[in-house]
Amino acid sequence: MVVASVDNLADERSKAQFDVGAMKIVWAGSKHVFDVTDRMARIVASDPEFRKDNRTTLGRKELFKNTLRKMAHVVKRANELRLTEEEASKLRFFVDEPGYLDLHWGMFVPAIKGQGTEEQQEKWLPLASRMEIIGCYAQTELGHGSNVQGLETTATFDPKTDEFIIHSPSLTSYKWWPGGLGKVSTHVVVYARLVSGGQEHGIYGFIVQLRSLDDHTPLPGIIIGDIGTKFGSGAYNTMDNGFVCFNRVRIPRNHMLMRFCQVTREGNVCLSDVPKQMVYGTMVYVRQTIVSDASWALSRAVCIAVRYSAIRRQFGSQDRGIETQVLDYKTQQSRLFPLLASAYAFRFVGEWLKWLYADVTERLQANDFSTLPEAHACTAGLKSLTTSVTADAIEECRKLCGGHGYLCSSGLPELFAVYVPACTYEGDNVVLLLQVARFLVKTVSRLAAGKKPVGTTTYMGNAEHLMQCKSSASSPEDWLKPSVVLEAFEARAFRLAVACARDISKFSTPEAGFAELSIDLVEAAIAHCEVIVVSRFIEKVQQDIPGDGVKEQLQILCFIYALHLIHKHSGEFLSTGCITPEQATLANEQLRTLYGQVRPNAVSLVDAFNYTDHYLGSALGRYDGNVYATLYAQALRDPLNDTVVPDGYEEFIRPVLKQTMRLSRL
Amino acid sequence: MVVASVDNLADERSKAQFDVGAMKIVWAGSKHVFDVTDRMARIVASDPEFRKDNRTTLGRKELFKNTLRKMAHVVKRANELRLTEEEASKLRFFVDEPGYLDLHWGMFVPAIKGQGTEEQQEKWLPLASRMEIIGCYAQTELGHGSNVQGLETTATFDPKTDEFIIHSPSLTSYKWWPGGLGKVSTHVVVYARLVSGGQEHGIYGFIVQLRSLDDHTPLPGIIIGDIGTKFGSGAYNTMDNGFVCFNRVRIPRNHMLMRFCQVTREGNVCLSDVPKQMVYGTMVYVRQTIVSDASWALSRAVCIAVRYSAIRRQFGSQDRGIETQVLDYKTQQSRLFPLLASAYAFRFVGEWLKWLYADVTERLQANDFSTLPEAHACTAGLKSLTTSVTADAIEECRKLCGGHGYLCSSGLPELFAVYVPACTYEGDNVVLLLQVARFLVKTVSRLAAGKKPVGTTTYMGNAEHLMQCKSSASSPEDWLKPSVVLEAFEARAFRLAVACARDISKFSTPEAGFAELSIDLVEAAIAHCEVIVVSRFIEKVQQDIPGDGVKEQLQILCFIYALHLIHKHSGEFLSTGCITPEQATLANEQLRTLYGQVRPNAVSLVDAFNYTDHYLGSALGRYDGNVYATLYAQALRDPLNDTVVPDGYEEFIRPVLKQTMRLSRL
Repeated sequence: MVVASVDNLADERSKAQFDVGAMKIVWAGSKHVFDVTDRMARIVASDPEFRKDNRTTLGRKELFKNTLRKMAHVVKRANELRLTEEEASKLRFFVDEPGYLDLHWGMFVPAIKGQGTEEQQEKWLPLASRMEIIGCYAQTELGHGSNVQGLETTATFDPKTDEFIIHSPSLTSYKWWPGGLGKVSTHVVVYARLVSGGQEHGIYGFIVQLRSLDDHTPLPGIIIGDIGTKFGSGAYNTMDNGFVCFNRVRIPRNHMLMRFCQVTREGNVCLSDVPKQMVYGTMVYVRQTIVSDASWALSRAVCIAVRYSAIRRQFGSQDRGIETQVLDYKTQQSRLFPLLASAYAFRFVGEWLKWLYADVTERLQANDFSTLPEAHACTAGLKSLTTSVTADAIEECRKLCGGHGYLCSSGLPELFAVYVPACTYEGDNVVLLLQVARFLVKTVSRLAAGKKPVGTTTYMGNAEHLMQCKSSASSPEDWLKPSVVLEAFEARAFRLAVACARDISKFSTPEAGFAELSIDLVEAAIAHCEVIVVSRFIEKVQQDIPGDGVKEQLQILCFIYALHLIHKHSGEFLSTGCITPEQATLANEQLRTLYGQVRPNAVSLVDAFNYTDHYLGSALGRYDGNVYATLYAQALRDPLNDTVVPDGYEEFIRPVLKQTMRLSRL
Repeated sequence: MVVASVDNLADERSKAQFDVGAMKIVWAGSKHVFDVTDRMARIVASDPEFRKDNRTTLGRKELFKNTLRKMAHVVKRANELRLTEEEASKLRFFVDEPGYLDLHWGMFVPAIKGQGTEEQQEKWLPLASRMEIIGCYAQTELGHGSNVQGLETTATFDPKTDEFIIHSPSLTSYKWWPGGLGKVSTHVVVYARLVSGGQEHGIYGFIVQLRSLDDHTPLPGIIIGDIGTKFGSGAYNTMDNGFVCFNRVRIPRNHMLMRFCQVTREGNVCLSDVPKQMVYGTMVYVRQTIVSDASWALSRAVCIAVRYSAIRRQFGSQDRGIETQVLDYKTQQSRLFPLLASAYAFRFVGEWLKWLYADVTERLQANDFSTLPEAHACTAGLKSLTTSVTADAIEECRKLCGGHGYLCSSGLPELFAVYVPACTYEGDNVVLLLQVARFLVKTVSRLAAGKKPVGTTTYMGNAEHLMQCKSSASSPEDWLKPSVVLEAFEARAFRLAVACARDISKFSTPEAGFAELSIDLVEAAIAHCEVIVVSRFIEKVQQDIPGDGVKEQLQILCFIYALHLIHKHSGEFLSTGCITPEQATLANEQLRTLYGQVRPNAVSLVDAFNYTDHYLGSALGRYDGNVYATLYAQALRDPLNDTVVPDGYEEFIRPVLKQTMRLSRL
């Protein structure tokens, strides 16, 4: 069936009150980024090798082989088109399929860059960048996740042979989860307990060759394989997340990544003069990219749900006239528009984190570590906040699409399944929030000693005011004042942190208090993270922003973001006395008004993401809104529809109908 | 790899402070139900034909065929074992795989029983119960879901031939979603607009034959197929959810289900004397089963998460000693124990709904419709509440299992994917809550006229007290008083409903008010539904319950359920003035104490569900706690591990490593 070219959303688009082209640049971050992104997205979308609409119908083996084909095609195209690193990375992004290239470029190469000596970088990076070797990154073990210090794998130095012996002493020590490990990688950076002279010296990375470069068979002493299927059809099942067991595998001494710690020929272990804090710089970097990914994933889901909500009609007519667009219902708006606002909020806080990372890096190079703990806490918290919200939001968008959201052709099931691990990897979200809370409690307890809080905690310096202030909001419009909104968020966060610090001090030891009050601590951490996101968004909309009506739209979204949080956490705002029940009601009224204002712009606000239909991968989210014909065309392509009478009829359906099953009873 | 028999959870089990055997009976509902359930679960678990651990690795066609095989085996075993209807239904339940039998027995047969005349039942039910025909149920259309009145399919009476002409006038009118339709069913009950004498007469059901009973090919005028893959691997992809387009398909007049409405030979349409309200009785029945299913699904997820949280250890030790069980962390407890409590809460409210259905049926047969609207609202609300909570809870349990929860071998991804449609089918959850809210507002506005509220709204009769009361809680222990807890829940629900009624009256029309305030209405409806669940749970734990310590454990769970809701919705409890911030803090303190009390009993409380390892389908949730060896054994069974070097190496990996891709650039 040919899907006719139509624009069912033209009417929606004609209602936009702002310059969509200008908003596209704001969303991208700059004209340059927009251009690169747009070009790469189109290259992928127009190449039939990158089709992804059959992904959810394939069995595991076919699916994996299909991904190998695509990855090879990525390498080929990147070479043919002589892409820059920036372009190649965008190309991979739009191929939108988890595969070993992600780990090779995203973890293996950076690990060598970050933890290898100059000599080691000179040896390994050319091999890696030409892809003469393919690498991955193995930290977690079958029995060990968040707690890196609990890893069991050992790397024991043997001074006789000048080698390390990499060994897995138990089943729970098997490396488990690394992407690209199971079937593809030739090399791995493996994290293990360094043992030398009978003593333990902490966890370090070691480069180990896994497979023969001749025939790809595992090297002696290495038991390796795939860990099995994962959440979702398609999704991460394209990736060979793997396990590996090392049975006393020997590697040369110089395969230990020695930037921070050297082991000498004699087996002496000495820390280098490169400060260990540099590692935190890397964490800031990685988590900043995760926040950025959150805004991509969230905006993609929101784009699908907004467009389909404008197409889909339900109820609202008594006499078979045309039904009401679902997007016109307040219940739909109140679930969907805060997510649209969150997508923009996360985009901007992600941009700001890029700046923060650059700032931290510059300071580290000048041996200034003063802002590091705060930057570390801030990125940890934002990683947790944005990924949790995004995971829930994708599922909410799926539900907002009604029954059809459950079809893989909606794109949402796979998006959810691919996204949710972000809540767990690079720091479990709850564990991270507890780290943030620890930092906040420390910050609060040092206020008395006159220590000035820095960075995103600066507002806590205003302690007296924040403890006493009462919101001045006395009309719905007051909730459009940045100062009113910010004060409420800062006061709530500060009061929750202060209450935690106070309650902890009632316990016999701080550790006992931390353990017992961890629920409150998590809530305080979230409140602080929301201060960061709200204040960055407010900052953004106070800047000059070119383009007709662009700034006005962003202001509306900014206040939707803030006010929906006040509603969501009204218990905290009320119990800390930051606002009164009456003021909460005023905020809700204003929120409803803002929903009405964003309504005519909703479709254009998701158009501003500039996503191709290929990237969206959704019959419901198509740019032209031709939803139903596309759903039908997609259904016809399911392998089950290859034949009218299904395989299995003769063996398993006919005998039921013809009572052969029954007869067997006689 | 042989998994050795161990009991890693023995220590946990030895700590139980109650009689687990007695709790099993409480959970099942009766000794009889326990026995039947236990026997059927074991029959399935011990039959290799019902293995399900390879389900997530299969492509669509293989997966579907595999299900056809299992369904035929179900029919065979049910015959061989001469199972009763009750037993056969449990057997199908434990096979735990969506398939056409669900629709045949769960929708097609009941539709004929409920809507067919006696004559029609005599004709069709024997055919169906011998499975000489296989039926399904087709209501939703590609463009029409919740709004049954918006259906487009027509059934036009042709008096010349005494036939109905079933017709799909547009693409959006194609029936879309019915399970069993795509590839298996020979017959369908299809809902269509009855047209006779050029006039429309509403929506009714018609039995249409779809496929030849000789060779299974679709009959003339019928275009039919599968709608494509759905959320998750395995999951509902075992089912042929289908579409069908009718091109003027003729059926005899007596294929219209005529219990409520008859069409005569002349084409006259006359309503029968069977009251239409009977239809609501069916809805009460169906939704009651959905609430019951919610407690199954939720308890299954909780069982997995609790057991694995007792096995898994993270952090908590400085010197490589044994790490802390994850279940000992307050953050884990505060996320997991409320879900454990909710599983029990939903189980008991589900049991109560069974009673309600019996009561309603009895009254309907005596032509007493007085309790029907309240019973209808109550079941609609509970369907919405329990399915929303359960869907979120399964995903939360998955996250609580850390990274391994993302593996299909954890059982949780598939459980989630199979469960979530419950939020959408049989009434979208938000639409249902709005119906409840409408009923509540009506109830409130009739109070002034002296109309006494009935059933679960009886508490609203106590209007004056509920508007004015202030909670008397002045210590954490006060929050263990049923009257204190109930009063807070009733006051909050009532005040929210009253506020809605008041605010709606400020709008020009009630409809405008309903539309604008729908967000508040949804919140009021949830508050009311929570009153129902809390009060049924309190009632339950006030009864005599046999078994050492059983009642005490249920009391703990009851208060965890209630107090975690007070925390979750503290904004509403505070803003309505039902409790003070100080009282909220006391409730939290009590909640933490309760978590400590449930901790030693947690594993035994999930043992009481009496789930077989087959039914759980989870390496993490195994009864013996032998988690890691099982994860490994499962991984080795993945098809990708059939060979050490993966299919695709020669074509797609070797050329990358050997730079053949690069060379193509020259």
